Amino acid sequence: MIAGELAVRVYYEDTDAAGMVYHANYLKFAERARTELLRQIGFSQRRLREESGIGFAVRRCNADYLAVGRLDDALTVATEIAAVGAATLSLRQEIRRDGEVLVVLDVVVACIGREGRPRRLPGPLRARLAGSGDPVVTTQSSK
Amino acid sequence: MIAGELAVRVYYEDTDAAGMVYHANYLKFAERARTELLRQIGFSQRRLREESGIGFAVRRCNADYLAVGRLDDALTVATEIAAVGAATLSLRQEIRRDGEVLVVLDVVVACIGREGRPRRLPGPLRARLAGSGDPVVTTQSSK
Amino acid sequence: MIAGELAVRVYYEDTDAAGMVYHANYLKFAERARTELLRQIGFSQRRLREESGIGFAVRRCNADYLAVGRLDDALTVATEIAAVGAATLSLRQEIRRDGEVLVVLDVVVACIGREGRPRRLPGPLRARLAGSGDPVVTTQSSK
Amino acid sequence: MIAGELAVRVYYEDTDAAGMVYHANYLKFAERARTELLRQIGFSQRRLREESGIGFAVRRCNADYLAVGRLDDALTVATEIAAVGAATLSLRQEIRRDGEVLVVLDVVVACIGREGRPRRLPGPLRARLAGSGDPVVTTQSSK
Repeated sequence: MIAGELAVRVYYEDTDAAGMVYHANYLKFAERARTELLRQIGFSQRRLREESGIGFAVRRCNADYLAVGRLDDALTVATEIAAVGAATLSLRQEIRRDGEVLVVLDVVVACIGREGRPRRLPGPLRARLAGSGDPVVTTQSSK
Repeated sequence: MIAGELAVRVYYEDTDAAGMVYHANYLKFAERARTELLRQIGFSQRRLREESGIGFAVRRCNADYLAVGRLDDALTVATEIAAVGAATLSLRQEIRRDGEVLVVLDVVVACIGREGRPRRLPGPLRARLAGSGDPVVTTQSSK
Repeated sequence: MIAGELAVRVYYEDTDAAGMVYHANYLKFAERARTELLRQIGFSQRRLREESGIGFAVRRCNADYLAVGRLDDALTVATEIAAVGAATLSLRQEIRRDGEVLVVLDVVVACIGREGRPRRLPGPLRARLAGSGDPVVTTQSSK
Repeated sequence: MIAGELAVRVYYEDTDAAGMVYHANYLKFAERARTELLRQIGFSQRRLREESGIGFAVRRCNADYLAVGRLDDALTVATEIAAVGAATLSLRQEIRRDGEVLVVLDVVVACIGREGRPRRLPGPLRARLAGSGDPVVTTQSSK
């Protein structure tokens, strides 16, 4: 299955008055990583929305917070696709700093149409997601 | 002209590792206050979007940060409409704590259509905004 | 055990380009509700931090997203304390719109000291949390 | 004077229900760019805070919104230091997409101590900021 890594830097916006990364913000980092993983295999969220009328909605997100991230930390989000269903994706994501796991996320994402109802994953995307292949190193792509 | 006040509580999500309210988040508080001011005079952002196809986009925002907000602060956003143009609104907003002004914002908001192009303010909204009248006390309305 | 409700309005800042509340932002609503529940029983996050040197860190958060929130929605966050441990709290939170449950969250929060290590819950807080009593209606308090 | 560029990708978290980048979030992009510019010349926000007890607070931010950013856009934040005072920095920042300027920001940042009072910029930082030199290309550094 497809897997990837995204580097994420912690800025002031990500932290809170306790001096740590605010817990909800790790979910943003994870979503960035999922988006870059899609992009890396040739699918952009915007094009999927505009051309196929589909998007993704998080159905479940279980987050275990094991250690604390701080300002200026250089984090890595490791993403593995755990299962590809007809209309859902299950992913395991780990947010790490120098190999130490800070947060583990189990995420189920559903494919939905414009009206918000479940939709089957487009065939080519499904094939690409389920396909074997080398791990994909995703980066904060800017091109 | 119309004016209003909105009470805003500072939560962890609003603060950063410097122990202060993160500067960009005051713009969120100001937007909440503008939205509630509209609601108080009978216009919801969602209905305007759905029924008239219009929305508002910030064209200019000048923010002066005079003092620092902190976790748990009970803030007030005072909003005054300074000028109503054909397709724009100018507002003066102050974010205060116990009467002390923390941030002053001068904001110009443009009325735009679905495609993002400028649109004239709907007549009834324009009349209501420009109309004299008692100050409106906006609250974190939940009904 | 203690329970409470907090009214939360959905603003533009909470939504995303899919027209829905961005999934991570429900965790912010839940944290606001936990903070107000604490405040309602006499404990402010800032005073706890300043006077007792303690804070709270989310250890686990399981979120089930059942339905979608949208701009201008008037939501309610219902919070129930499920268990009070020596150094942790377990809570069940539901985010609702007109009685419909949009998101269910199971949250474990740990009491930590300034240095980030686990700390026992202060006795008076623990007693108050575990104590029986009428449900507490929390509001976007601003006083 | 020092100048730099930072690439920023627009994710769902940055957008709102109007389908655009939420206006306050450009201020986050700008802050990331200032932080990376500092890092590129050898100063990290965290080390400055921990070792010199200083931080930066935004004193003024004037933002002109000229065009609209959207999901998946690859943006660039161009930052120029306009003036270096004893305790303040003035910067001009432009957020661009394919050369088109979306937002222009004029920002004044003050150096402050732990207690929030103004502090002189540390000499070595001041010299480096004011120094002539080649433009610095900042990247979403992750190392």
